[in-house]
Amino acid sequence: LDSLDTELIAANAAFYDAFNRRDVAGMEALWASGPSIACVHPGWRAQLGRDEVMKSWRAILANPDAPKVRWSEETVHLHGDAAFVICLEELGGDTLVATNFFVREGASWKLVHHHAGPTRRRSSRAPSRPAPGDLN
Amino acid sequence: LDSLDTELIAANAAFYDAFNRRDVAGMEALWASGPSIACVHPGWRAQLGRDEVMKSWRAILANPDAPKVRWSEETVHLHGDAAFVICLEELGGDTLVATNFFVREGASWKLVHHHAGPTRRRSSRAPSRPAPGDLN
Repeated sequence: LDSLDTELIAANAAFYDAFNRRDVAGMEALWASGPSIACVHPGWRAQLGRDEVMKSWRAILANPDAPKVRWSEETVHLHGDAAFVICLEELGGDTLVATNFFVREGASWKLVHHHAGPTRRRSSRAPSRPAPGDLN
Repeated sequence: LDSLDTELIAANAAFYDAFNRRDVAGMEALWASGPSIACVHPGWRAQLGRDEVMKSWRAILANPDAPKVRWSEETVHLHGDAAFVICLEELGGDTLVATNFFVREGASWKLVHHHAGPTRRRSSRAPSRPAPGDLN
């Protein structure tokens, strides 16, 4: 891994660490300050803008029954001063796939988007022929 | 909408137009040339790199039973030379939420990532208190 990959793997880990610690202040610090942030929690509509995104995280992190997440299989996709990290999330018996989108803000990488949803369990990455309902 | 927003709304529409036309060559032209692209089709594992991503699109676009997609509620989130568009997708009776990531490549915006998954139907964006299985 080169140093930028390492930075992004660490930024991605900090996000899940804040989630697992129920650390609202830590979570807020990880997200970019601008208005163009968004978040798609599994099955939810998109939360748009910092106010909605942070409101959703406060609700989630306040839930005492929330399971902890284990993340794995991170891949870093760097595009200049923007990057996204894809990884698996396992929580509460579910396996999800997440995309976490970061932009450089000063010396650090800040989250501007998180999109998580269901995925297949430990099957191969290579798709079989998709079923009609399994498209796009 | 300013002109960059308009460009990104058009790039996003071109993606769905290529999908609806089953236009493999058009789809290939819309994606960035570099290796750092990825795609998460609903319920699939992530496809990583141009070869895997294009293989998945060829499989999907070859399916004669594939329903057409209607997209709506686009929001543009601009971050320098990168941007993402969030929108709803309706196809085959399902409602999905998609994030489409673009980067500037020469004069155009090229796709570097697509992540789509299930969402709630026409409910409010504002989350109710999440159920324990409905987190992150």
